[in-house]
Amino acid sequence: MQSLTVNLGDRSYPIHLGVRLLERAGELLRQAGLRGKVAVVTNPTVAQLYLDSLDEALRQAGFEVAPILVPDGEEHKNLKSLAAIYDRLIAERLERKACIVALGGGVIGDLAGFAAATYLRGVPYVQVPTTLLAQVDSSVGGKTAVNHDDGKNLIGAFYQPKLVLIDIAVLRTLPRRELIAGLAEVIKYGIIEDAALFSMLEQSIDKIIGLNQEMLTRIIAASCSIKARVVEADEREDDYRAVLNFGHTIGHALEAATGYRKFLHGEAVGVGMVKAAALSVNQRFCDAASLKRVMALIQKAGLPVEIPPEVAPQSLIQAMEIDKKVAGGKIKFIMCEGIGKTRFHWLAPDEILRGLGA
Amino acid sequence: MQSLTVNLGDRSYPIHLGVRLLERAGELLRQAGLRGKVAVVTNPTVAQLYLDSLDEALRQAGFEVAPILVPDGEEHKNLKSLAAIYDRLIAERLERKACIVALGGGVIGDLAGFAAATYLRGVPYVQVPTTLLAQVDSSVGGKTAVNHDDGKNLIGAFYQPKLVLIDIAVLRTLPRRELIAGLAEVIKYGIIEDAALFSMLEQSIDKIIGLNQEMLTRIIAASCSIKARVVEADEREDDYRAVLNFGHTIGHALEAATGYRKFLHGEAVGVGMVKAAALSVNQRFCDAASLKRVMALIQKAGLPVEIPPEVAPQSLIQAMEIDKKVAGGKIKFIMCEGIGKTRFHWLAPDEILRGLGA
Repeated sequence: MQSLTVNLGDRSYPIHLGVRLLERAGELLRQAGLRGKVAVVTNPTVAQLYLDSLDEALRQAGFEVAPILVPDGEEHKNLKSLAAIYDRLIAERLERKACIVALGGGVIGDLAGFAAATYLRGVPYVQVPTTLLAQVDSSVGGKTAVNHDDGKNLIGAFYQPKLVLIDIAVLRTLPRRELIAGLAEVIKYGIIEDAALFSMLEQSIDKIIGLNQEMLTRIIAASCSIKARVVEADEREDDYRAVLNFGHTIGHALEAATGYRKFLHGEAVGVGMVKAAALSVNQRFCDAASLKRVMALIQKAGLPVEIPPEVAPQSLIQAMEIDKKVAGGKIKFIMCEGIGKTRFHWLAPDEILRGLGA
Repeated sequence: MQSLTVNLGDRSYPIHLGVRLLERAGELLRQAGLRGKVAVVTNPTVAQLYLDSLDEALRQAGFEVAPILVPDGEEHKNLKSLAAIYDRLIAERLERKACIVALGGGVIGDLAGFAAATYLRGVPYVQVPTTLLAQVDSSVGGKTAVNHDDGKNLIGAFYQPKLVLIDIAVLRTLPRRELIAGLAEVIKYGIIEDAALFSMLEQSIDKIIGLNQEMLTRIIAASCSIKARVVEADEREDDYRAVLNFGHTIGHALEAATGYRKFLHGEAVGVGMVKAAALSVNQRFCDAASLKRVMALIQKAGLPVEIPPEVAPQSLIQAMEIDKKVAGGKIKFIMCEGIGKTRFHWLAPDEILRGLGA
């Protein structure tokens, strides 16, 4: 087991990373000072695979366990599912010192985390991410949210977990398409902060997709470490944390414009990173060779790199304007300056349209 | 204008207190560093009285104003009203650096505050309390929440405002019954922390109910000051802040057991304080003379002091068990040790029943 810490004063917490860590969940929750009842929020797919072993591990450590199932899928990351979780937490009489465990991907983590942030004005929670995307990104850093009909993550809170428990063994049951989508975020860390990670991915992407455990451990640890450092520097995204949104401004817009049906989040981010790199070249922040490497790696990973022809660029702009990164009519973009370096830049809608070639 | 500060590091904020402060709202929001659009959350009753003057004050200072009306009454402090506020904030394209103003009583403050805590993962907000209860209690300290069918304030967040603006002039349009209900919280501050405030109330309660401005200013300033000090010591109610719940454990239960229809919050707290003082005598923490003074002042203020005969004590216990102050089956009570001093004590349901004479 490897461990790293997200250092946030009295909100600091460890990330534990290893193979078959689920079986040690009880002991690790105890170590983190948690006690009382544990409400495990998960979905039917993940429950069938992993709820029994988590349940057993928790009970062996003396925890009482109450499973709370929510339907699978991004379309259920909304106020309705949240209300259903509140109902169950109240029916289970979960107390302030009890805790919530999010067992699942980003949807479960965001939903359960937001429920934890707001139930009784905040109860402790633990992230047990079961997708690569959640392991390298959404489970770390305390962003929790639900979607609104008009946009993703418009309602939420910054609320840190007490513990993140990453079991690499669970990735073997993850559909290949989702594994690859998760790699988009790993590639993002390389582009924004870590040229060595980027090179490692260029060399070993096939091994990673083949679930080589050593490589998986290395890239997940590297990703969590970058995420932790960024969150430590700017927990509430007043400024610098926005660097993590590289590729996401266009990515989110693409998801919205295609009704969240065509692309997985990571796939949309794949397209978004290529386009953000192209805009960076367009604005003369980035050299063409770096754009080429970005495009090549994303393609090699098996991720999409183009906006589908049926998506009008104007519809992307509209979606961006509803997103949270707007001020004074301009949209905040994270530009790359080659591999491993970024800068912020505000773009007017027509500058974006020109950059997208529209 | 008098000002005091709630000192919470980077979450510190001023409370301004004075007559006709609404007219200076624009200038005071600017001073607090706020800018952009202002969404004013209020209800039709308060809007009719004060929205125009607030709107004018804000516009004169260059703010764009978007009023958001929610229906009047505690029964609307729920997830449905919250969702309606989100819809309006999104429709108004409120940005992260914009702000929300809560213009109204505790319901509006709690709802608007929770919306501010969770819209775009948190936007700045300002409390402009228009009831005595909200001025001395709910507008200060950052507790925000909505009710659940099974209990009050079960869903919420600790989220501090950027500014509290208390205009004493608005109290002249407050119904007398609500003014008196607000006095329950002022009496509470006397009992828990400030024997001099308690004596002042004993001497001048009639003047206060007669809206004597000097006396109102003194008791509101004293109340806010105590609240601020308690919140500074324990922002998230890990321990000491619970002292503010003196009289509220039974009070909340009484509100719940009577379907939130019979008592105003302050009235239920009036009964709750008498019963908590009686339990304190019963547990030998408090002398009988202090109980007599508590009972006499609450009666003199015109507040109720008895649990109505139709409310079964067992139904109060059930309501307490759903509330947030339960651990290991025992209920946390704030006991008084005479006037101006308190202690915590955990009571089993049957000890409470005996203390209530059931």
